[in-house]
Amino acid sequence: VDLEDARVAVVGLGLIGGSLALGLQRRCRQIAGVDADPKAVALARQAGVQAHRELRPALTSADVIVLATPVRETVRLLQAMASDPPNVELVLDTGSTKRQVVEAMESLPLEVPAVGGHPLSGKERSGFAEADPGLFAGSAFVLTPCARTTPAALALAEQLVLALGASPHTMEAARHDRLLAITSHLPYLLAAALLDSAETFARDDERLWEMVASGFLGATRLAASDLTMVVDILATNQDLALSALSAGQAALERLRELLAAGDPGALRAHLGPVQQRRLSLSGPDGSGHAA
Amino acid sequence: VDLEDARVAVVGLGLIGGSLALGLQRRCRQIAGVDADPKAVALARQAGVQAHRELRPALTSADVIVLATPVRETVRLLQAMASDPPNVELVLDTGSTKRQVVEAMESLPLEVPAVGGHPLSGKERSGFAEADPGLFAGSAFVLTPCARTTPAALALAEQLVLALGASPHTMEAARHDRLLAITSHLPYLLAAALLDSAETFARDDERLWEMVASGFLGATRLAASDLTMVVDILATNQDLALSALSAGQAALERLRELLAAGDPGALRAHLGPVQQRRLSLSGPDGSGHAA
Repeated sequence: VDLEDARVAVVGLGLIGGSLALGLQRRCRQIAGVDADPKAVALARQAGVQAHRELRPALTSADVIVLATPVRETVRLLQAMASDPPNVELVLDTGSTKRQVVEAMESLPLEVPAVGGHPLSGKERSGFAEADPGLFAGSAFVLTPCARTTPAALALAEQLVLALGASPHTMEAARHDRLLAITSHLPYLLAAALLDSAETFARDDERLWEMVASGFLGATRLAASDLTMVVDILATNQDLALSALSAGQAALERLRELLAAGDPGALRAHLGPVQQRRLSLSGPDGSGHAA
Repeated sequence: VDLEDARVAVVGLGLIGGSLALGLQRRCRQIAGVDADPKAVALARQAGVQAHRELRPALTSADVIVLATPVRETVRLLQAMASDPPNVELVLDTGSTKRQVVEAMESLPLEVPAVGGHPLSGKERSGFAEADPGLFAGSAFVLTPCARTTPAALALAEQLVLALGASPHTMEAARHDRLLAITSHLPYLLAAALLDSAETFARDDERLWEMVASGFLGATRLAASDLTMVVDILATNQDLALSALSAGQAALERLRELLAAGDPGALRAHLGPVQQRRLSLSGPDGSGHAA
């Protein structure tokens, strides 16, 4: 089927699932959301999204299932589908790490087409109340094909990504997890470490918090992320997150040596390419300002 | 004198000096900017600011001198003033580190009243073209009194801060430098280390840059800061920046141990207070969103 003829079920009506459900309204034949939490269901209905608490009826009447649940919950749902396979054209997920999801997808029966997915858009704030149909516009949406990915399923996933205004980026799950460990999981860990350091210093001098300006707030923003999501990500990408952390620690050690050497010229020579790279990156916050 | 009766000379028409000159228009009897760079002078004049290239005439006709130059240049200007003291009511600076500035202020003759200053507002982009009279509104502006600070000079500095819409925060120079090492210099170093790590990984896999979203951009924004300013800050606060870096490295090592232990409950227990602290911080970006 084409997306416009498909009945889509979105499992999980948090920020991502809710934004998907809103963003796909009128882009497919039918869209239904599912969430065990009656509050999320009520909010979705208020926003005009068909929503239910029961999983099974929603899945049996769907052509496309999107799992927008925390990664470890997604893995459990895929394991349940393996013993009770849905009759669908596509199972897609939206989790922030992909190896364990794809592994669970590969345990599905041959006739269930599945693709891993990860939209590179989000906010710290979670829940349907934060959902926004434009959340994905202009962002990358990674698709990670696996042994259960048919060309038709991949094409349908790409249609869905494009319907959200995002751009599909196809790559292997392991490659995704290795790269995101640097571009997403390490930034989170650095933000958490910065806040932790500030907390320690503030115990001796609480006027520290008066000295916080937009630079500190921007650098620590990721530390406000939903903890269930964060712990899920770190638990399902432990090895590669640790490798990324090592890279970050090595980079800090290089900076320590340069700082300790007290040679402003050498420091500047090291920081120049770093500054140039940052200036060359574009994106939602690419032109951003901070103190 | 009161600020409204004062003739103010602003030395350095970059982002901070330019914003000060624009923000103090019509709040004092006269405002004149000085910059050795003819382009800055031309831009300032286009924006309606009286501006000159020569330092001496501007200083001799001023009641208040604001040094908005890089820290090491400010120290040189103060040393020059020590042998050729201006007849003023206040010398104020705007540098990001304060111990060396205050030390140079204390070498001024007794009759020259001086206060250290640091507005906690800025952008990565520098130069008069980025100047904004509202840059300081709602921000903290630290004042660091020293042996040359008279009550009248401090009161005049506070008037100036309030005229910009900022709030004066008075503290010792050493305390300022210790706290800013954590709230400003460490965030910069972490941002630089993150970009450096990404650069290293991208040498093996250049698709890394496709995986950059708003979270990474927000976390690295400070690395785009003006290098002259950054190297100046790190050179004039080397010892305390190294201490702050040690605190950051220790916090990362704690995170490594927690991650390596593979206990999601313990990880969550550590990250919970960090998340709560970040959510409790308010400010220009306090409600911010990122991927």
